[in-house]
Amino acid sequence: MDALKINKRLIMTPGPVSVDPRVSQAMSNSILGQFDYEFVDIMNQTMALIRQSFLTQNKWSFPIDGTSRAGLEAVIASIVKPGDDVLVPIIGRFGYLFTELVTRAGGIVHNIKKPMGEVFDQDEIIEALDRINPKVLAIVHGETSTGRLQPIDKIGHACKTRGIFSVVDAVATYQGMVIPVDDWELDAVIGGAQKCLSIPSGITPITFNDRFSEEINRRKRVELGIRSNEITEQDDFIRSNYLDLTQLQDYWSPKRLNHHTESTTSIYALYTGLKLALAEGIENRAHRHSYHQEGLKLALKALGLEIFGDESNEMKMVICVKIPQGVDDNAFRLGLLKNYGIEIAGSFGELQGKIWRIGIMGYAIEKQNILTFLSAFSIYLAYQGVDNLNLEQAVSTLLKYYETSE
Amino acid sequence: MDALKINKRLIMTPGPVSVDPRVSQAMSNSILGQFDYEFVDIMNQTMALIRQSFLTQNKWSFPIDGTSRAGLEAVIASIVKPGDDVLVPIIGRFGYLFTELVTRAGGIVHNIKKPMGEVFDQDEIIEALDRINPKVLAIVHGETSTGRLQPIDKIGHACKTRGIFSVVDAVATYQGMVIPVDDWELDAVIGGAQKCLSIPSGITPITFNDRFSEEINRRKRVELGIRSNEITEQDDFIRSNYLDLTQLQDYWSPKRLNHHTESTTSIYALYTGLKLALAEGIENRAHRHSYHQEGLKLALKALGLEIFGDESNEMKMVICVKIPQGVDDNAFRLGLLKNYGIEIAGSFGELQGKIWRIGIMGYAIEKQNILTFLSAFSIYLAYQGVDNLNLEQAVSTLLKYYETSE
Repeated sequence: MDALKINKRLIMTPGPVSVDPRVSQAMSNSILGQFDYEFVDIMNQTMALIRQSFLTQNKWSFPIDGTSRAGLEAVIASIVKPGDDVLVPIIGRFGYLFTELVTRAGGIVHNIKKPMGEVFDQDEIIEALDRINPKVLAIVHGETSTGRLQPIDKIGHACKTRGIFSVVDAVATYQGMVIPVDDWELDAVIGGAQKCLSIPSGITPITFNDRFSEEINRRKRVELGIRSNEITEQDDFIRSNYLDLTQLQDYWSPKRLNHHTESTTSIYALYTGLKLALAEGIENRAHRHSYHQEGLKLALKALGLEIFGDESNEMKMVICVKIPQGVDDNAFRLGLLKNYGIEIAGSFGELQGKIWRIGIMGYAIEKQNILTFLSAFSIYLAYQGVDNLNLEQAVSTLLKYYETSE
Repeated sequence: MDALKINKRLIMTPGPVSVDPRVSQAMSNSILGQFDYEFVDIMNQTMALIRQSFLTQNKWSFPIDGTSRAGLEAVIASIVKPGDDVLVPIIGRFGYLFTELVTRAGGIVHNIKKPMGEVFDQDEIIEALDRINPKVLAIVHGETSTGRLQPIDKIGHACKTRGIFSVVDAVATYQGMVIPVDDWELDAVIGGAQKCLSIPSGITPITFNDRFSEEINRRKRVELGIRSNEITEQDDFIRSNYLDLTQLQDYWSPKRLNHHTESTTSIYALYTGLKLALAEGIENRAHRHSYHQEGLKLALKALGLEIFGDESNEMKMVICVKIPQGVDDNAFRLGLLKNYGIEIAGSFGELQGKIWRIGIMGYAIEKQNILTFLSAFSIYLAYQGVDNLNLEQAVSTLLKYYETSE
């Protein structure tokens, strides 16, 4: 049998990104049964690591067995019942995903929007909370489609004092910056695997507080076949079984009530990825991301490219550059991938064909890779006929940056 | 940082079971981007392998990024809309899971039941189809909670001629026996990862035919943010986004419409696990399972244990034995695990504490492991005070079986 052959890549997209070999090694360990006491111990340790990663005391901090979208849907499908009002601010594609998830859950969506490339002042959001008085605010922290960072440090408190539940999509920012869930008083936050944490996609750490837990447990329904008789059925039960957070609470608590078969290797990956991230330190990790993002951004400007959006509200784990005139988005990216094994991303909707998104995420973000990327990317742009590029200026800017700052 | 230390195990449960090291090695390959042409090629090859594994020509043969339960929910949530009648025959716990999934989708469940340990004659099911005239029949093929194999070879045809959709949970039987999806005229079938295929839990291969596809696409809703304007919204759209098969069709077709971020390492595992299974040959693999199951069953009888249920309808990938009187289910299994690293399973509901389920699944099923299991298990039973065990008779029965048959 031919073994799978995977060619070398330098992935500079907003995910999925390269995995630390130590994570891959952990994943190659043999399987443990899902109720094996040693596996249960690893599950409990993983919960503790998730708490640390979110800077929270939330008891309910565990992963969803699915990609980030599964984590988002688990939270929305559990908190939003038909007819509930939900405020979803939109600054890019992933606000539309929240809108979609709320709609599918039967919720009534109230959108406020900004032009692509902008973010909300938090007071604008708070004003909308007062105007609409929703049950839930669902908001994207790092909007990778436009590279924007939506400030949210005041939002949790504002929601709490109004009796509104705050739900935050932190998929792209998780472990690439500090997200102090308790200090910011956020009710439910969804992290990501294949972005700054840089483990394989397929598992999604989430956290939520007791207030949120009490609310979703009003809809609790233990499944047939394993429930005892005292549970009362309710009409507004959660419509998903797989993504029902109340059932997952029973699975991730000492009850260990049978639900899905936890993905052993994904837990090994998450455990190890979080151990590595916390050993580095979230603040150090945040600095590593912003440090290399700043250096590469300076170099790309020196090259002659234009950065998309206001730098005052940019995510530090992605660089959005305008595609130079005359360059075909898809053809260029395919050429870069085929010739160099280097991958960058386009964008969605009205930004498609207009900007490239260069991911600065996780394990691969270190000097050698950034210099290699800049050199190959800039020369290949020149080769493709883009005029007026300052090739030497770009590389000297980056080299000097690395020599003079840290 | 302390690396994860996983101790040795011989897992003899109905899953999750040991993984072939060649699968683990494949999973340790580096990440490819989800739209990288080399990854897309692997995705397409994986679809072809899934088709072969189900003996089907179904175009729509792809994995769900979640555990088996996610695959079951994706199929049920996509085909069952509120008010739809669904027939669910129950012979054990996993029939209740189907019942639960249908209820959550808003369907009206019609159950027919057999005592635990029995299966239906197919004519009884067909009679119920005629009586109830449901939209969907959802049926479990291998009911691991009782170790029963429900015959289904006539069911698909009976459904088709009546305009009913057949949905089959083949999680436990997939790649442990031959399931000719096209010959049996089944509309949608869900396989399993962590059982006879013996790759890590977390990804679930499914297949469905054009008739099924046409039906679910009546409910199609392309998500906000990436849909063009011509799509009409409908009130009865699928309530899940993550488990919406119509969106997954767009992701797994040349459109490659963005949805979730496919789990790279899970695809490496599935691709490699299927390559290995098909290289062995599904018939050879089925024989390997039934061959070792038969030998171990003979030995356990010789030991003096009683087999649960009628052997004429047993699954060949599990042995259900009655727990000897005076033995504490949980304490014995924990002792076997702690002292030998050997894991067997209890059961659910009314069978809990009454039977053990010994899994005969996948990679670990070969002579050395079966002999090791029998020896440790039988001696530990004797050590726990069970009288009248024929220890030498048991092992000689198994050794002779291996010497005289193949």
